[in-house]
Amino acid sequence: MVAAGVDVIGLSVGPDLPWLVGYESMGLERLTMLVVPVDGEAKLVIPQFEVPRVVERPGLFSIRPWTETEDPTAVVAELMKGARTVGIGDQTWSRFVIDLQHQVDGATWCNASGVTGPLRAVKDASEIEALQRAASGVDTVARALQSGEIPLVGRTEADVSAEISRRVLAQGHSKVNFAIVASGANAASPHHHASDKVIEAGEVVLCDFGGVTTEPHGQPGYCSDITRCVYTGEPPAEFVEMYGRLAEAQQMGVEAAVVGTAASDVDGAARQHLAEAAMDQWFIHRLGHGIGVEGHEDPYIVEGNSTPLEAGNAFSIEPGFYVSGRWGARIEDIVVATQDGPRPLNLVDHDLAVVES
Amino acid sequence: MVAAGVDVIGLSVGPDLPWLVGYESMGLERLTMLVVPVDGEAKLVIPQFEVPRVVERPGLFSIRPWTETEDPTAVVAELMKGARTVGIGDQTWSRFVIDLQHQVDGATWCNASGVTGPLRAVKDASEIEALQRAASGVDTVARALQSGEIPLVGRTEADVSAEISRRVLAQGHSKVNFAIVASGANAASPHHHASDKVIEAGEVVLCDFGGVTTEPHGQPGYCSDITRCVYTGEPPAEFVEMYGRLAEAQQMGVEAAVVGTAASDVDGAARQHLAEAAMDQWFIHRLGHGIGVEGHEDPYIVEGNSTPLEAGNAFSIEPGFYVSGRWGARIEDIVVATQDGPRPLNLVDHDLAVVES
Repeated sequence: MVAAGVDVIGLSVGPDLPWLVGYESMGLERLTMLVVPVDGEAKLVIPQFEVPRVVERPGLFSIRPWTETEDPTAVVAELMKGARTVGIGDQTWSRFVIDLQHQVDGATWCNASGVTGPLRAVKDASEIEALQRAASGVDTVARALQSGEIPLVGRTEADVSAEISRRVLAQGHSKVNFAIVASGANAASPHHHASDKVIEAGEVVLCDFGGVTTEPHGQPGYCSDITRCVYTGEPPAEFVEMYGRLAEAQQMGVEAAVVGTAASDVDGAARQHLAEAAMDQWFIHRLGHGIGVEGHEDPYIVEGNSTPLEAGNAFSIEPGFYVSGRWGARIEDIVVATQDGPRPLNLVDHDLAVVES
Repeated sequence: MVAAGVDVIGLSVGPDLPWLVGYESMGLERLTMLVVPVDGEAKLVIPQFEVPRVVERPGLFSIRPWTETEDPTAVVAELMKGARTVGIGDQTWSRFVIDLQHQVDGATWCNASGVTGPLRAVKDASEIEALQRAASGVDTVARALQSGEIPLVGRTEADVSAEISRRVLAQGHSKVNFAIVASGANAASPHHHASDKVIEAGEVVLCDFGGVTTEPHGQPGYCSDITRCVYTGEPPAEFVEMYGRLAEAQQMGVEAAVVGTAASDVDGAARQHLAEAAMDQWFIHRLGHGIGVEGHEDPYIVEGNSTPLEAGNAFSIEPGFYVSGRWGARIEDIVVATQDGPRPLNLVDHDLAVVES
């Protein structure tokens, strides 16, 4: 905070708060906010009747409950009084920020992620262990897709998505963040919403899913995120060739993820390999994103991000190709940058699995 | 917007956007924002590769896609240029608001709910029909609790919570917002987090659950929210007496919810009845909250809110008592204010159900 010139930080809904103190704010209209001054004691401003939810952490913060007819914004504003620069947690509801801005005089407002982002981006051993558990959990589900244990043909995408979600929960996850199932031409939409379309024989089925690990109450969960594609029946040679190139590009992205390399160069390594086959026109998103208590966080593996990778960074490497109206594919693993080189956490086969049609 | 003096509104994550145009923003770091000027055409600024997710509504808005290396905040700022007053959707991530404030010169910022809140609070016939479906769905689950079809004794709260969640999903819901299961002394915590505590014989079990209805793609879901208590075995006379008083207070709250009555007076009607038995000391929250596409919204049934109820308002009536370290209870129904008087949507028995211990 001193280095960033921030006098006080306010953390509410979003991952910063559980990451820092193990308590997750409810996403409701009653304000919860941890006020962290650069000097002095942090205070958790919280609805009085939610106090029993908090696992207290003496020495880390004290609790300032507010009653149903009190104005919590005024309580927070009082704690922030005199601050010149206030950092606010990135996902805090706009209404609280705007109300606070009317009550804290003369402050400049900035994003708390300027302080928390670089800290959260470097994972310690216990965080990497949690990310490994998360990855191993979804690996099990991905293998069930590849082996044909999860039937596809004749079912709707939404139905398969629901089954994937149930299986993710059964693998040590408390929550599913998303379970994309995109078949045939739908696979050309990277964030496709699993629909009532019935999966047919002779289609690619792109599955991208992840969630949050189950942890003891008072400890934050860590995220998983994996993408694998299967083909319902023998794939056409053209698709096999493109998919093979994609798998190579993914591997080159992983190999480029060496400590000290700029994030943009990691993106470039995979993109260049697709460009050499004129496939970069169909790779319409960045190569990856950091992952931790939040599904997407620093470091972003994207053109323009010249920040060098640090040991302990964890991020996805997920190139794809998306040919509108036709088909698409993506391969995604979570990788940790270590002093010994890139360490993939997902260990599921990268080949295009062919399942019974 | 003219009446509120707002020149442009920006809607992102949260319920305003699906309520207005049927599209729900992904809750991710890539900005989606519908920019609605007081005059002229609304524009949906959205990541290019998420465009296929949108059900287009010609005449309602046009699409302004942004590519992976573009700055979406700059795109939105350009569309807001010249606005003196900007309204921002209440749940928009703080980071986008703060970034926009640095790029839109000289504007005053306010909450979009100043405009959307009163509009959303008055439900039309199709919205009330959706809320009725939502209520009927959770009613079925509540009846399964009361009948003993859902076993309780010997199971953890978390396990019962998971079963309730599965049952809510099976009753026409796409999502579960919460499934509080609080047994024994845990019932004294209104927002208790379902825990590993095993439910025992001779305890109150407070269950408060709700979710969002399944609707066709491109239409927003509506929320359910119900609370019922059961007792595992014969309840002590003292609890029966307090619970009886609570049920009366709930009924008086419902009966007070007449068009034209101030929200605070509805709260007061139920609170006064508890006060006459010296139980108001344990009723530590407001009587209720509005409900619609969002679980909690206008109108809030709370002391200090003098706004009179309008026909079409839908809200919870949920008094409770919470005796720390001992027990607690709450009874909650959703009610619609109509010209013909208050209409409860939840129709499950209010008596304290006694289930096999």
